[in-house]
Amino acid sequence: MSAQPGNHAIGLDIGGTNIRGAVVGDDGTILAEVSERTPETSDGTTMTKLLLGITQHLLTAHPEVGAIGVGAAGIVEWPAGLIRWAPNNTYRNWRVRDELEEATGLPATVDNDANVAALAEARLGRDRLREMVFLTVGTGVGGGLVLGGVIYRGPTGRGGELGHIIVAPDGPVCGCGNRGCLEAVASGTALDRMAREAAAADPGGAIARIARDEHDGHVTGHAVTRATELGDPTALGLFATLGRWLGIGIASLTNMLEIEAVVIGGGLVTTGDLLLDPARAAYLEHAYAREARPVAEVRPGTFGTDAGVVGAALLGLEHAHDGEVHAR
Amino acid sequence: MSAQPGNHAIGLDIGGTNIRGAVVGDDGTILAEVSERTPETSDGTTMTKLLLGITQHLLTAHPEVGAIGVGAAGIVEWPAGLIRWAPNNTYRNWRVRDELEEATGLPATVDNDANVAALAEARLGRDRLREMVFLTVGTGVGGGLVLGGVIYRGPTGRGGELGHIIVAPDGPVCGCGNRGCLEAVASGTALDRMAREAAAADPGGAIARIARDEHDGHVTGHAVTRATELGDPTALGLFATLGRWLGIGIASLTNMLEIEAVVIGGGLVTTGDLLLDPARAAYLEHAYAREARPVAEVRPGTFGTDAGVVGAALLGLEHAHDGEVHAR
Repeated sequence: MSAQPGNHAIGLDIGGTNIRGAVVGDDGTILAEVSERTPETSDGTTMTKLLLGITQHLLTAHPEVGAIGVGAAGIVEWPAGLIRWAPNNTYRNWRVRDELEEATGLPATVDNDANVAALAEARLGRDRLREMVFLTVGTGVGGGLVLGGVIYRGPTGRGGELGHIIVAPDGPVCGCGNRGCLEAVASGTALDRMAREAAAADPGGAIARIARDEHDGHVTGHAVTRATELGDPTALGLFATLGRWLGIGIASLTNMLEIEAVVIGGGLVTTGDLLLDPARAAYLEHAYAREARPVAEVRPGTFGTDAGVVGAALLGLEHAHDGEVHAR
Repeated sequence: MSAQPGNHAIGLDIGGTNIRGAVVGDDGTILAEVSERTPETSDGTTMTKLLLGITQHLLTAHPEVGAIGVGAAGIVEWPAGLIRWAPNNTYRNWRVRDELEEATGLPATVDNDANVAALAEARLGRDRLREMVFLTVGTGVGGGLVLGGVIYRGPTGRGGELGHIIVAPDGPVCGCGNRGCLEAVASGTALDRMAREAAAADPGGAIARIARDEHDGHVTGHAVTRATELGDPTALGLFATLGRWLGIGIASLTNMLEIEAVVIGGGLVTTGDLLLDPARAAYLEHAYAREARPVAEVRPGTFGTDAGVVGAALLGLEHAHDGEVHAR
C-alpha cells in the first residue's frame, strides 16, 4: 500500500531515560525512527526544543504525516495535553500539545506513556481487546486500562495509575514516596534493591560475583538475570518473588474489574516466563470467585519497546479529527 | 406532590441476613417497607417465592408502582439479571429478572447490592457524584464504582468487586477463600476476628469482660464497639487497625482511578470517625502524587442502611424504559 495522507502520524515516547520519535502507519508499521537521551535538565523549554527537532527531522522525510501523538511519563491532563508532574523528569505544567501544534500546524494529542502503549496493544496486538489491563514492568510499573474499548483516564487524565495500587502497605518505599505500591515491589527498581540485598548477604554468591566481574561491582537486576541463566537458585528465587508481587497486583486489578486479558510490556518482560510464570501462579491463587469469573490470560505484549511510539501515533491519528488544530 | 404512575418503583435488597422491600419515589422517599429474614435454604425457588410475596404485598397498597429493581449479594450477570453465585447464599444461576417479570408483568432490573447502594448515594446523596468509590463495611466489604456518571459493572456484570482487591497478600484468609482481600482485614468479620484474638490475649480486659457480661461470652465486634465507649485502649487500637486497612484500600482504589468522593456505607459506618479518622489518615499517607492529584473526601453515606432499597428502586426506574418487560 502506498502512503495516504492522514494515515501516518508521528508518535513521540517521552521517558525518564530516552525520547523516541517515529513515523507510524495506522497498521502499526514503523517507517522511520529517531531516539535521543533524555537530558539531565528535562524542563519544558528544553524538552519542547528537543521534540521539535525530532519532529522536524521526521517531517522532512515524511511530509505526508497528518498528526502527532505523544506519550509521556507523568500525570498528563486530558484532553488539554498539559503535563502536570512526572516522577523522573523535571518538567512541570508543560503545555506540550499547544507548543507542538503552534510550531508544526499539525493536530497533536498527548497522554500518559503507559496509556498510549496500552492503546497499541489493545488495538493492534494479538487480539483486539475491549477490556484490558496493561502493565509495563521497567524501571517503574506503568499501567494502562482499557474499559469498553477506550482508555480509562478519569475525567481529567489523573486516573489509570495502576503501578500505585497498594499491595504491601508495610513494604518498601516507592519512588513516589509512598510505601508498598506495586511499583515498589514489582519493578526493575525492586529487582535492583533485592539484588543488592542478596549480594550483601552472600558476597561469594553468583549475583555478587557477576556484578564484580561484569558490572564494575554495580549490583543491579542485570546481574540477577545473568545469574538465572547459570541456574543460580538465589537469582531464580528473586524472580519468583518479583513475579509473585506482579501476580498479586494483577489479581487485585482483575478482581475489581472485568478483564479479557492482562498484557505485560516494559523492559523486564524480555525475561519471559521467568517473570510471568510466578505472576500467573500468584494471580490464580488470589483470583476472586473462580467458580463464576474466568481467569484472564497474562501474556507479553506484541510491540515490545515499540508500544510507546506506535500507541502515541495511533492516539494522534484517532484524535486528529476531533477538531484539527485544537481551539484554544 | 401526589404519586405519579412511573415515578415509583419497588426496590428489593437481598442480603445474606435480611431481605428488604420498599416502595420508593424517584426522589428517594420510602413510602412503604417490608423486611424478612433470609431463609437458611436460600435457593432460587425459595427466594423467588419470598420476593413475590413481598412484591405482591407492596403492589396491593401501591398499584401505581411502574417498575422493580433488585440489588442482590453476589455476582449478577448484567443486563440479564441472572445471579450466578453468592458467597453467603445458596442460590446459583438464579434468573431473578425473568421470574419477577413473568409473575408481575412489571419491568425488572437486577444488579449487585453494593452497586445499587452506590447508585443511590451517587444520584441522591449529598452531592450528585460522577466519579465515586462506594464501600459498604458490614459483614463483608462491598463495593460500587461510579465512573463517568454510570455504575461500572464490566461488560457482563462481573466487575466492581472492590472488597476483593488485595491489600495484605500474606494476611488473613477472606470469606471468599483467598488471602489478604480488603474484606479480610477491613470488615465486621475482621473486627470479630481481632476481637477474639484480643479477648484470648487478655481475658481480664474490657473486650472479654463485655463479651461475658453482655453477649453470653460470644466475642464479636459489638464488644469492641462497647469497649471503645469506655475508652478501652485495646478496643480503640482495634478500630485504628481496621480503619487503617480501610484507608489503605481507599488509597489503592483512588490512586488508580480519578475520584471525586469516597462514600462509606454499611453497618460499621455507624461508628463514625472511630472508623473513618484512621481510614482518612492511612489514605492520605498512601495517596499517590499529592502534588498533582487532589485527595478525595471520605464521608459516610446519606442513606445508611436504606441505600440498598432506594438504589434498587432507582435502578428499576432508570431501566424501566429500556424496553418495558424485557424481550427474551
